[in-house]
Amino acid sequence: MSAPAEPLDLGRLPGLRWSEEGLASLSGPLLGLFRDLARPWAAWRRDFGAEEHACPVLLGAADMDRMRYFNSFPHLVTLAVNVEDREESLKAFAGSKAVGPDGDVAPFRAAPMRHALTPAPCYHLYPQFAGRELDAPVYLGTRNATFRREAYYQPLVRQWNYHSEEIVCLGSQEEVRAFLSGMSAKWDAFFRQLDLPAAWKTAVDPFFNADRNPSALLQKLDPVKRELTLGEGPALGSANFHRNFFCDTFRILRHGKPAFSGCVGWGVERMMYAIIRRHGYEPGGWPDLKALYPD
Amino acid sequence: MSAPAEPLDLGRLPGLRWSEEGLASLSGPLLGLFRDLARPWAAWRRDFGAEEHACPVLLGAADMDRMRYFNSFPHLVTLAVNVEDREESLKAFAGSKAVGPDGDVAPFRAAPMRHALTPAPCYHLYPQFAGRELDAPVYLGTRNATFRREAYYQPLVRQWNYHSEEIVCLGSQEEVRAFLSGMSAKWDAFFRQLDLPAAWKTAVDPFFNADRNPSALLQKLDPVKRELTLGEGPALGSANFHRNFFCDTFRILRHGKPAFSGCVGWGVERMMYAIIRRHGYEPGGWPDLKALYPD
Repeated sequence: MSAPAEPLDLGRLPGLRWSEEGLASLSGPLLGLFRDLARPWAAWRRDFGAEEHACPVLLGAADMDRMRYFNSFPHLVTLAVNVEDREESLKAFAGSKAVGPDGDVAPFRAAPMRHALTPAPCYHLYPQFAGRELDAPVYLGTRNATFRREAYYQPLVRQWNYHSEEIVCLGSQEEVRAFLSGMSAKWDAFFRQLDLPAAWKTAVDPFFNADRNPSALLQKLDPVKRELTLGEGPALGSANFHRNFFCDTFRILRHGKPAFSGCVGWGVERMMYAIIRRHGYEPGGWPDLKALYPD
Repeated sequence: MSAPAEPLDLGRLPGLRWSEEGLASLSGPLLGLFRDLARPWAAWRRDFGAEEHACPVLLGAADMDRMRYFNSFPHLVTLAVNVEDREESLKAFAGSKAVGPDGDVAPFRAAPMRHALTPAPCYHLYPQFAGRELDAPVYLGTRNATFRREAYYQPLVRQWNYHSEEIVCLGSQEEVRAFLSGMSAKWDAFFRQLDLPAAWKTAVDPFFNADRNPSALLQKLDPVKRELTLGEGPALGSANFHRNFFCDTFRILRHGKPAFSGCVGWGVERMMYAIIRRHGYEPGGWPDLKALYPD
């Protein structure tokens, strides 16, 4: 895990309400910045002819399991659970001690769990193409609330609930590699435009038990993840080549063989962090994304 | 529970991807309509000087318990759960049988639960004012992903994960009542403008064991909830007078006494449903919210 990032002075960010449990509320100019960071994505989607999809917060556990998320990242997962739908179980839960003085929910009889909270926006998209033969590369854009349970949290840098925006490409190996290099070039231009001196670094996903996970070993031998970082700061976003892992899993074909896929995405709150660190706490000093990327 | 609403013809809504578990993805003109339904709220927030707050999806269970949500609506609650943060628990969960062939997550050792998925956007706001004396009425706007576990689901009408937008007022009884009648008048004008023949009806929240819940009995004796419905269809939104329940709970004062609160909010997907039912499946026939409510 990377070193903790230089913390922000929350006293100078009145629009950020923070809970130690990794949750943030936004208002005022910070909320404006959050929204405006969607603007370049609209432009990039247009450039690639990417259709935007707004997906639910909840994602089927069976699909996530097929994508091996639970094997690789059990420590990061948040699942959704309901009280068992039986009168006596509901009555017991509705009793006055549903939550103890420590804030913990008292044990209850749970219904079977079938969904997790979205770990990354693009996980919703691959299952939608299951069994399809693509007659052209497919480009999709998606933004979602995303969730990672972490050992510690930090405002705008490491949150349990944050937001991510991505563009995904499904196609032949050449098509996906062309997309990744095209998007990387757009990001280079964008970061220069915003005067954010970011640099690409090869990276590995935070696998559980990485020493024994074949996927983690493979990533080390043949890097497929590049992260964009600002100095020694946290990664702002990444460009990921999935080889044909997702498309093979869901039998998505291109030219009669399992297609390839890749995605490029950033954490919206980390981009806000980078802008504040570079351009200061005064909203007047932030890049004018409305002017740079008008509707 | 109200009768099932007239179902939509999903074959005519290519931008709606539906799962039987009450989850929808949107793209194309439907996603445009979803976004445009935020426009009138920006105007209404300006009219009331309401500050917008973007809150997390997760909400502290201790606060929800203080607001008696678990007592009143145990059947609707969705909680967030993580695997216990111990090597052996994570290893067990990461095993290859995390999800069975029926799609159910296999039992695992859970960490203590401390959060639920947002049941209504305004629940995030009252705790923020805990212990404060208000020297003027407070108006707040908020939109969020919202969650209700239901016995059955229906696209755009009854979803496990849907979206709600609200404005809340905290103040004296007179200030809150003036807000509720002011917002109701704005809605009357808005629904006429969209040629949606909606009517107000007195309503009661869907309490668990309603016959034995004092809050449910009180709502019947002294109605505090008015819903806006289209014919026999589902409620599109509601105006709610909370008396001083939330403010008393969190010791929010006005003129030295517990303040009052009220909120007005709609379900975004239900508004989409109403527009499609009234104006048809062709996006060209939908009201032009961009023109009616420009930036």
